[in-house]
Amino acid sequence: MMNTREAGNRAAVREVGLRDGLQMVRTILTPAQKIEWCRRTVAAGVREIEVTSFVPPKLIPQFGDSAEVARAALEIDGLLASALVPNLKGAQRAAEAGLRKVDFVLSASDEHNRKNVRRATAESVEDFGRIIEWRKEAASDLVVGAGIATAFGCAISGEVRADRVLGILDALLALGADEITIADTVGYANPAQVRALMRDVIERVEGRPVTCHFHDTRGLGLANVDAAAQVGVRSFDASLGGLGGCPFAPNATGNINTEDCVHLLESLGFHTGIDVRMLIELRREIEAWLPGESFAGAISRAGLPKTYDTRAAMA
Amino acid sequence: MMNTREAGNRAAVREVGLRDGLQMVRTILTPAQKIEWCRRTVAAGVREIEVTSFVPPKLIPQFGDSAEVARAALEIDGLLASALVPNLKGAQRAAEAGLRKVDFVLSASDEHNRKNVRRATAESVEDFGRIIEWRKEAASDLVVGAGIATAFGCAISGEVRADRVLGILDALLALGADEITIADTVGYANPAQVRALMRDVIERVEGRPVTCHFHDTRGLGLANVDAAAQVGVRSFDASLGGLGGCPFAPNATGNINTEDCVHLLESLGFHTGIDVRMLIELRREIEAWLPGESFAGAISRAGLPKTYDTRAAMA
Repeated sequence: MMNTREAGNRAAVREVGLRDGLQMVRTILTPAQKIEWCRRTVAAGVREIEVTSFVPPKLIPQFGDSAEVARAALEIDGLLASALVPNLKGAQRAAEAGLRKVDFVLSASDEHNRKNVRRATAESVEDFGRIIEWRKEAASDLVVGAGIATAFGCAISGEVRADRVLGILDALLALGADEITIADTVGYANPAQVRALMRDVIERVEGRPVTCHFHDTRGLGLANVDAAAQVGVRSFDASLGGLGGCPFAPNATGNINTEDCVHLLESLGFHTGIDVRMLIELRREIEAWLPGESFAGAISRAGLPKTYDTRAAMA
Repeated sequence: MMNTREAGNRAAVREVGLRDGLQMVRTILTPAQKIEWCRRTVAAGVREIEVTSFVPPKLIPQFGDSAEVARAALEIDGLLASALVPNLKGAQRAAEAGLRKVDFVLSASDEHNRKNVRRATAESVEDFGRIIEWRKEAASDLVVGAGIATAFGCAISGEVRADRVLGILDALLALGADEITIADTVGYANPAQVRALMRDVIERVEGRPVTCHFHDTRGLGLANVDAAAQVGVRSFDASLGGLGGCPFAPNATGNINTEDCVHLLESLGFHTGIDVRMLIELRREIEAWLPGESFAGAISRAGLPKTYDTRAAMA
């Protein structure tokens, strides 16, 4: 059915449940479970997964196995495995494990950045420069993405001005970011704000891939996906079952849900190549792996609309 | 703070929790509770409430007190009280109780309409004509709105074509509908579909008020509000705490949530005149009145963003 759709109308969903989703759950999954999650996500049609985070292991015990998970993920056919890195050390560990792509992230809000990595945003921009510098010296072909968190507001400091975000973006691009992620870490974004900021971001990146990372904290995650798609964003982070949050944003649990995001994008006429039903089966299994965690999402509860497959085939 | 906003940029939220929200809950509220709900909703800034439904009382016991509730609601200063009516009899009972406005509703899907009122859509269009005819004969100034349910798809029959919806709309307008409501009764709508259909609807109504009625069944309720607002819709049905559903749509519980809808509209820069915090206080009380019912919504859980009041003041 998917083959009838126009190839030009593609949108990507990057699974971040293994990274953003797992960083606050109580159960530590085994590397084998994580790889099973990856394998079945790829089988459902997802191409890129943020498989782990190279933060200091004592900070988030869930990622004590990051090198092992990264190595095993590289064995999965058809998977682009990436990892979040907060600094040069993390990037080096990721590269050592064999990963071909890392996502560096900093916060546009100084206060949030200090909570996360104990330095001002400008210092984190310099850290990003160090990663690029090291890559050059090492003659590595590691793809280095840069993400700007709290780009739509901060639960600690409140407003984050668009011109500040764009200034940081310009600095990251000038340093050599290969890809850009714009993140609403605390669920403050609204669709009008998303359209305005992402229009400017897309204009500045000059063709480099742009991903939006939304949280559904205030119910607007999918509205923001639609808004970003309207102005040209074609890649979205999402977490299976809506797992995830931010340790420093109270009640900010909840990345947007992968199943629901795919349903939305397909309904809008985009080709994601992802089978929602397979994701829902996988979600049921992961719910069993993570007792006591709260999973969110509408499609797994209500089911796909009767019109889903016809609509997708017609688009 | 609200006074600084442009008057031209208004959007309305009509509370339908007392009607759509209550039709499936197990607890029958007392008329006094219903009136307290109305009174406090008006105090929070809501102007119009669908206070009850004039369906045959044996069908939905919750509305056995419809005349009493309607009469009491008319005593509330600043409230435009309306009621849903499925036929002429309902409209007459509503007018007898003193209401100045009724909302007639039919389903675009024949199958859904038959389940609801045991006749084909075309027969319900004729029923609407009878209400208009009776109003003329009675020289009544009752405002008669017409709603089209399952306008974006039907859980029984699947796809509902836009040209069918527009044909029904034309018939209702020609008969003399004063206002139009377009309803996604089963939560099938997506934002692209909403933009396309509502653009056409707004063109055809020639200035008559248009309301969108969305359910959040598949997580797209607020995305659809944003989409409808983008093409000019300025009035939305919503239910406090997201109460409500459709007895013939499995798992279709959940009108969009009033608190979350107001938060979205204000964040988009619209002036609703509604105080979200007062709605949340009221919601807490109604949760206590309706033990065992499931309430939905993000803002009541996560709180308003720190940027909410500044953003609203600036818009």
